[in-house]
Amino acid sequence: MTSTLKYTLNVDLGDRSYPIYIGQGLLFDEQYFAPHIAGKQVMIVTNDVVAPLYLNACRASLSRFSIQEVILPDGEKYKTLDVMNRIFDALLQKRFDRRATLVALGGGVIGDITGFAAACYQRGVPFIQVPTTLLSQVDSSVGGKTGVNHPLGKNMIGAFYQPQCVIADTSTLATLHDRELSAGIAEIIKYGLICDPEFFVWLEKNVSLLMKRDPQALAYAIERSCRNKAEVVASDERETGIRATLNLGHTFGHAIETGMGYGVWLHGEAVGAGMMMAARMSQHLGWLDEQSVERLGSLLHAAKLPLVAPSAMDVEQFLSLMQVDKKVQDGALRLVLLKGIGHAVITADYDQATLREVIESCRG
Amino acid sequence: MTSTLKYTLNVDLGDRSYPIYIGQGLLFDEQYFAPHIAGKQVMIVTNDVVAPLYLNACRASLSRFSIQEVILPDGEKYKTLDVMNRIFDALLQKRFDRRATLVALGGGVIGDITGFAAACYQRGVPFIQVPTTLLSQVDSSVGGKTGVNHPLGKNMIGAFYQPQCVIADTSTLATLHDRELSAGIAEIIKYGLICDPEFFVWLEKNVSLLMKRDPQALAYAIERSCRNKAEVVASDERETGIRATLNLGHTFGHAIETGMGYGVWLHGEAVGAGMMMAARMSQHLGWLDEQSVERLGSLLHAAKLPLVAPSAMDVEQFLSLMQVDKKVQDGALRLVLLKGIGHAVITADYDQATLREVIESCRG
Repeated sequence: MTSTLKYTLNVDLGDRSYPIYIGQGLLFDEQYFAPHIAGKQVMIVTNDVVAPLYLNACRASLSRFSIQEVILPDGEKYKTLDVMNRIFDALLQKRFDRRATLVALGGGVIGDITGFAAACYQRGVPFIQVPTTLLSQVDSSVGGKTGVNHPLGKNMIGAFYQPQCVIADTSTLATLHDRELSAGIAEIIKYGLICDPEFFVWLEKNVSLLMKRDPQALAYAIERSCRNKAEVVASDERETGIRATLNLGHTFGHAIETGMGYGVWLHGEAVGAGMMMAARMSQHLGWLDEQSVERLGSLLHAAKLPLVAPSAMDVEQFLSLMQVDKKVQDGALRLVLLKGIGHAVITADYDQATLREVIESCRG
Repeated sequence: MTSTLKYTLNVDLGDRSYPIYIGQGLLFDEQYFAPHIAGKQVMIVTNDVVAPLYLNACRASLSRFSIQEVILPDGEKYKTLDVMNRIFDALLQKRFDRRATLVALGGGVIGDITGFAAACYQRGVPFIQVPTTLLSQVDSSVGGKTGVNHPLGKNMIGAFYQPQCVIADTSTLATLHDRELSAGIAEIIKYGLICDPEFFVWLEKNVSLLMKRDPQALAYAIERSCRNKAEVVASDERETGIRATLNLGHTFGHAIETGMGYGVWLHGEAVGAGMMMAARMSQHLGWLDEQSVERLGSLLHAAKLPLVAPSAMDVEQFLSLMQVDKKVQDGALRLVLLKGIGHAVITADYDQATLREVIESCRG
């Protein structure tokens, strides 16, 4: 496959800065890997769904290095400390040293677990992200959040750790399941909603092209999403302030993922319903008008995303799970809410009764 | 107990700088804790040997906070990812948020595992070191190396993560087993050997006072050891160069610890024999004279430390285990060797035959 680079975006984090390459066939081209690898040893970490599709291509692009691989089972429920230990087993069995590079080939789970393993192996080795899902291309591969889940909470164990580069090959989106395409679009919509109202309007016009997997539209949406995220991350790498707005829909969404069992709802699906809940909550507080909520609903619907929370979960379960959130401070849960399309705020300024009412009204 | 602060030492790492307090009874005095705790929640992590001795005192000194505790089993063999997960279980069950502080109350194992848990919980929460063994007071609580062991290698999984402060209470040394006292003196001798020849001479004169647990001599030796380590760490936090000299005796020592099974030899005992092996190796290479090797031998002997490696391990096992070392680069093992007392170097400039010969000759 010949490669076509569409965009190069720089994530500006001082001496931890790195480029994101976006385009067709990049994974098949060694020139995007080699300049970012200092040593000789490379460990590719992937899963049993992605391996048959792209492992050979990735191996070919890394053929000048000494390559080993670890193939993990696919799915969010395997994003655990135990499964991460298999990466350490492989690294130690193959005598990988501190100059080794890890390559994460797969979706968000592979990226998160591999990045965290890289952060911890011998107290830190370099790694490269090769996200193969739309969601991981627009979200988890930007910003250095790595980690694993705990039975009591999602992403509760991890590190801030930046990759050497991100290689977002849009040709991999052709093999994505429809549900996963939609899940990726949920995170794309999120950027419009948080801080980019123009992009929200663009999405209202072009969501059907994304659903048809139009390469130009996808590359554009990926670049604009990554740019939005990169700007927020550059100004608040350790999430002491504004970065938390990127969590719009995630407090509700994580509760759905944990409550239903990891992997039953895709992350992006849970975030879709979660954004709708955040919008309704904002409306109840008088911060967002009905028309804006409806525009969001229409867009999520066009992307075949859920608009309501699972009926299997009751209000008490929601509230209990939402208390396990990294935005809790001294017992108070802060929520990311909306004061308009393109204007997210982080706030503890709401009453518990309204929250209960909104959760109740948003169950399917 | 009334507290007497003997020394305050600052570890200079920019915005990650922190103080080390050294003195009698400090653990019984809230003034050393409170200024370093920002939130309300405090989780004390300790083990089943230290808890009966000092947990109540530590709780009393933290009484103005909301305190919980985790009591882990004692010993190097429990420094694993699995055991670390018990800390995460407790933190999540008790709904500890990102502003919580962890307090490591115990020896090096508790400090390493708690520091690593703090580095990873919600991608990083603050922690305080309260080292209760001589070894942890002079070594593991300075410099921010945290981590756990893997069956295939010691300290292979971890993070560089700095505490808010270190509270080294010399009154806890009264309850130390003799073997552990000696193990701590091994690391103290190491600083003289690496970079402080005057201190080496002081130790030759005063080792008997240390063995008698003279409080003045212990406080002096702790302060001087920490100061030596703090200077090295401040100039090379991430161990890209000179910091590796602090590993004198550790490549041989880690092989002994892993080969004999974690906990059979104490870390300091293995480092004692390891320093002797490094000295013999340096002598074989013509870098160190016989008299210096004998001075080291006499000092280790006075501290009741082993001078030879376990006969149960053969040369092949040594060489194989030594290859799993963080100082290996592209297959070549670099060793920390001596060009004189007080002058350590890191080098790959030696031949394999000499290494084999030295290991063979140093077995007990």
